[in-house]
Amino acid sequence: MRETLIAISRRVKDAVQDLPPSFDRGLELGTGADGTPTSNIDQFAEDIILEYVEENDLPLNVLSEEAGALDRGHGRTLVIDPVDGTHNCILGIPMYSVSLAIGTSSLNDIEAGVVLNLENGDLFVAEKGHGATLNGRPLKVRSPDPRGCEVLVYMGRHAAVGTMDVVRRAARSRSLGCASLEMCMVAQGKFDAHYMNCDVYEKSIRVVDIAASALVLREAGGELVDLQGRRLDMPLDLANRSNFLAYGDVKVKEALL
Amino acid sequence: MRETLIAISRRVKDAVQDLPPSFDRGLELGTGADGTPTSNIDQFAEDIILEYVEENDLPLNVLSEEAGALDRGHGRTLVIDPVDGTHNCILGIPMYSVSLAIGTSSLNDIEAGVVLNLENGDLFVAEKGHGATLNGRPLKVRSPDPRGCEVLVYMGRHAAVGTMDVVRRAARSRSLGCASLEMCMVAQGKFDAHYMNCDVYEKSIRVVDIAASALVLREAGGELVDLQGRRLDMPLDLANRSNFLAYGDVKVKEALL
Repeated sequence: MRETLIAISRRVKDAVQDLPPSFDRGLELGTGADGTPTSNIDQFAEDIILEYVEENDLPLNVLSEEAGALDRGHGRTLVIDPVDGTHNCILGIPMYSVSLAIGTSSLNDIEAGVVLNLENGDLFVAEKGHGATLNGRPLKVRSPDPRGCEVLVYMGRHAAVGTMDVVRRAARSRSLGCASLEMCMVAQGKFDAHYMNCDVYEKSIRVVDIAASALVLREAGGELVDLQGRRLDMPLDLANRSNFLAYGDVKVKEALL
Repeated sequence: MRETLIAISRRVKDAVQDLPPSFDRGLELGTGADGTPTSNIDQFAEDIILEYVEENDLPLNVLSEEAGALDRGHGRTLVIDPVDGTHNCILGIPMYSVSLAIGTSSLNDIEAGVVLNLENGDLFVAEKGHGATLNGRPLKVRSPDPRGCEVLVYMGRHAAVGTMDVVRRAARSRSLGCASLEMCMVAQGKFDAHYMNCDVYEKSIRVVDIAASALVLREAGGELVDLQGRRLDMPLDLANRSNFLAYGDVKVKEALL
């Protein structure tokens, strides 16, 4: 299962790398199944993945950001974010990924997940019960520095004002605009937490964005909760959204929520 | 003058790239002349620059983050931030730079500036009255999208709560932790503004951080002001600090301040 996800992610990376400079990554093509604008690069990457699924007749349904839910008559579903961090990709900030996971009905039964950084090729892989790796090396979350934690926060027009409380409680904050890779950086022990607090439901996270990275984080010893502190679960659809705190060590949860 | 700065920046980049994996970039060596901790990588880069100045007997005084002000008996001063974005460098976020400028007494008489991205080699060069370039191509700021501007903001323990007003007025925000490169991204027309609002004076910006990037921005058609909207000037020392708004188009200043 993981090998299939790795193969798909590599095919996306190769194709994105081969794009001519004339390809307008940010061109808006319309509105995806999730209700957000579809950029040229999102559609391009999704097409490659769907083509792979068809060509190899993978025994999987598909849930993707742009195409929505494709019931192909199977028990398991391939959960896709073709490009997470689309605007970073357009702006040339080297933080955007393809994110792929396989599960049955919700975030908590995801069995395998892959996040591939499309800029530098960093490959995060997780299999439920078998740990998480970055480029083949095992990942482990870290314990926070007693001088204060380092946090990745969601920023944007709809970021709740309370976001600033978290920023000011942390020693250091960044906002990198790519939830999957930001969650993987917590799994990697580079940051203590990733926090999203939107005051508009339609702008908070979807399961397609984090299905893979949540497994990477949990398999590396971290946890993902809603802002009431409950273990986060989300059905495999595009309708449900949530705010979240992803953390490595439970002390971080206590300090930030 | 610009050729000297380019040569120095390239020497730093080559040396940093050649560092063995065993070199602990984040090791704290003590406190620099600016009162902040000196990391191993800061000291390493500064040593290379000071060595270059000595070896070539450059007719320049030096003002640097770690070493402070070195009066070498000349009229002009080389203003250095050996590594801007030190924590990005330590954390593996590919946004950190060496920043070099030459001036006489203040930010507003800087004659030449160079910012080199130490991760990907992007080279920003500006000469007063002669424009700014990225890798040899002329830079120009952009006009904001009427749907809302894209802003780089300073985040951290001492970020003022009012930062959130700017974030919520913008269409999109990032916080990348490297003022010099963030200002260059405004010069490049990738973002509309870079905003820093600290409520602790000692944590706001120093002239060494922005001497080069401010010239890059201004030569690309943008401007740098304090939070009262006055054109920002700062003496060439380590004592003075300031908050700021750097913007490409004056409409952005009107919208955000």
